[in-house]
Amino acid sequence: MPRYRLTIEYRGTRYRGWQSQKNARSVQAEILRAARELHGPVTDFQGAGRTDAGVHALGQVAHLDFTPPAGDARLIAAGLNDALPPDINILEARRADSRWHARHHAVGRSYLYQVSRRRTALGKDFVWWVKDRLDAEAMAGAAAGLVGMHDFASFSDRRIEEGKSTLVLLDEAAVRPHGDIVLVRLRASHFLWKMVRRVVGVLVQVGSGKLRAGQVGEMLEKFSPLPALFTAPPSGLFLEEVVYPGETYRRPLEPVMDISCR
Amino acid sequence: MPRYRLTIEYRGTRYRGWQSQKNARSVQAEILRAARELHGPVTDFQGAGRTDAGVHALGQVAHLDFTPPAGDARLIAAGLNDALPPDINILEARRADSRWHARHHAVGRSYLYQVSRRRTALGKDFVWWVKDRLDAEAMAGAAAGLVGMHDFASFSDRRIEEGKSTLVLLDEAAVRPHGDIVLVRLRASHFLWKMVRRVVGVLVQVGSGKLRAGQVGEMLEKFSPLPALFTAPPSGLFLEEVVYPGETYRRPLEPVMDISCR
Repeated sequence: MPRYRLTIEYRGTRYRGWQSQKNARSVQAEILRAARELHGPVTDFQGAGRTDAGVHALGQVAHLDFTPPAGDARLIAAGLNDALPPDINILEARRADSRWHARHHAVGRSYLYQVSRRRTALGKDFVWWVKDRLDAEAMAGAAAGLVGMHDFASFSDRRIEEGKSTLVLLDEAAVRPHGDIVLVRLRASHFLWKMVRRVVGVLVQVGSGKLRAGQVGEMLEKFSPLPALFTAPPSGLFLEEVVYPGETYRRPLEPVMDISCR
Repeated sequence: MPRYRLTIEYRGTRYRGWQSQKNARSVQAEILRAARELHGPVTDFQGAGRTDAGVHALGQVAHLDFTPPAGDARLIAAGLNDALPPDINILEARRADSRWHARHHAVGRSYLYQVSRRRTALGKDFVWWVKDRLDAEAMAGAAAGLVGMHDFASFSDRRIEEGKSTLVLLDEAAVRPHGDIVLVRLRASHFLWKMVRRVVGVLVQVGSGKLRAGQVGEMLEKFSPLPALFTAPPSGLFLEEVVYPGETYRRPLEPVMDISCR
């Protein structure tokens, strides 16, 4: 059965996350339903990364094995979209090698987090509103200390990751203020569960002066229960891009929702 | 009773519009409820402009007569916000003269409309997705022809405006493409009911080649039923700013929701 590579954006607000699960609305299950309605059997469908409830995606990637109707391949995405709810959007569907695997072959994942320094009526589902004054420079300094190969056990959920390595090579940890928004971007070949939200939570503690950058470094050297307490909410998080061998990241570090224009 | 000038942003999606009405959720009723809960009686509360169901505001202005608790005036907005749902946000509350009237004294209103040239999962509540190819230059040309004093009867709802003058001095009608978004901005001292959405609807017809700019000019000279048929949906519309004597518009012509970064 032919394999297709899908690039997908979604607003995670109404979903219990990407992954299909019993008795809960998921993005994966919606796309699977649409594909089956339109084109019959689906033999495999896997995303590059799981996203938790309320987390958004600008460029999730998945492979989908199915037999689309004959005709222009560009119409596959449009056909699926017609059967999908408006908060899920297939940006692209293109033919892939049947041995290509969306998760196993991904070599890089980019996550964007939007912290808002003000209450926002329009952007509320796309930011974490932090009332404390934030020192973005201090946040950027602490973030820089996370780049490289480190043991991120303090930033993962031990119950889930048990037995797995918690070493992660973090390629980028950028903090950029943009008007009322503070953008945080993390890039790595893979992430531990909840790691991005815990890193952002800790960086916000640094920004508000409650933690020093040095304490963040210590969390990499010795297990600390603190990051779990500071887990940032899902609303501000976006799975931005997934890249494969030979590909490069393309999205500039800019807000998804520009609430700063006033 | 002291009068306050409120600047308000809201996401109109869940509301039947600004104006209080029986058996329907409105932005005005939510703010009135919050003010009463916090501070007791409210003797007058009026907005500068009504917005229809689903229409958003970046800077609605209203006057509110009430007696806030003693203390820092800057805390009034925060106090109201604590009692408001997250999709309504008081940006500012400041003391105003008791003779100042938010609607009567407004000398300019600015509306922004976002047309999207692509399906968007994240921005769906903030755009009108138009599938046709849009020629933004043709739209800008037709828009330029609307600037000045004209009879906009073709663009208003005759049942409602009956007996009222349909002459409007349009100060600005700008069309600007920004990636996948085409922005339309209209500025005038006042607008007729549904006028902005009908102007946008007609401009989109021009952009897709179904109407010529010359036909738009004819709609100003002789009543035409066409604009009513082309009324743009409320989701893309924002009451952007309201200005009073001595004030100037401040917002740059940029998207509220930048879905074009990819």
